[in-house]
Amino acid sequence: MSDWVLHPRLAADSAFIASLPLSDLRLINDARWPWLILVPRVADAGEWLDLDHSQRQLLDAEVHAAGTLLRAHFDTDRINVAALGNVVPQLHIHVVSRQQNDPAWPGPVWGFGQPQRYDDSELQRRISLLQPQASSGS
Amino acid sequence: MSDWVLHPRLAADSAFIASLPLSDLRLINDARWPWLILVPRVADAGEWLDLDHSQRQLLDAEVHAAGTLLRAHFDTDRINVAALGNVVPQLHIHVVSRQQNDPAWPGPVWGFGQPQRYDDSELQRRISLLQPQASSGS
Repeated sequence: MSDWVLHPRLAADSAFIASLPLSDLRLINDARWPWLILVPRVADAGEWLDLDHSQRQLLDAEVHAAGTLLRAHFDTDRINVAALGNVVPQLHIHVVSRQQNDPAWPGPVWGFGQPQRYDDSELQRRISLLQPQASSGS
Repeated sequence: MSDWVLHPRLAADSAFIASLPLSDLRLINDARWPWLILVPRVADAGEWLDLDHSQRQLLDAEVHAAGTLLRAHFDTDRINVAALGNVVPQLHIHVVSRQQNDPAWPGPVWGFGQPQRYDDSELQRRISLLQPQASSGS
């Protein structure tokens, strides 16, 4: 994993929360939804299918942990999980807390309207709030 | 899994291809994209997070198999994988073959335009083409 570097577009659009065994956990800087991404630190991985079995096992646990974190901290009607990569070719998995009264419901969040960035103090509060516990469990 | 029944909206929008260990593999009846869904036969499952660890292991293998099938049979620039469930509450995972010149690229396919149904013979051809092999591999 030595050659992995975070894609500059992901760096610009999200903020670091924590380093999990496979992935960096990051918060998308868009206050419209509590929206996490997992970015596996695997050089040249563009798709789910580029991961091997053991990496996919880790990723599954991390998706589960990210969804559980969102459910614990936000009113959530539905967790959306997606690996798209149509815009940014580096593999990243979206884990988004959705509500039936959110602006894009029931449509998808990707490409919807304009991002609404957090102010700095709110961003820091969110990052603190979303620190995962040491054990992410099954 | 005895009480599981396919949601009528999924039944109407897709056609049965095969029964995998956890999920039914189905073809979305929309000729704009080669588009599979996996529907785990787990009663009351609405989200990825509703599956237990062993079910998620099976699902991961089936997502991998579905993506590999699409790549084998269609020109694919990107496989999109998503569990949304904002419209149909029964857990189902989309696995979609995307091309950079497809009508919605780089946006998501969900909610885009109107479905373009296959004619019957083309639908049957697709279903035959997409029969998984006995072993679905890693």
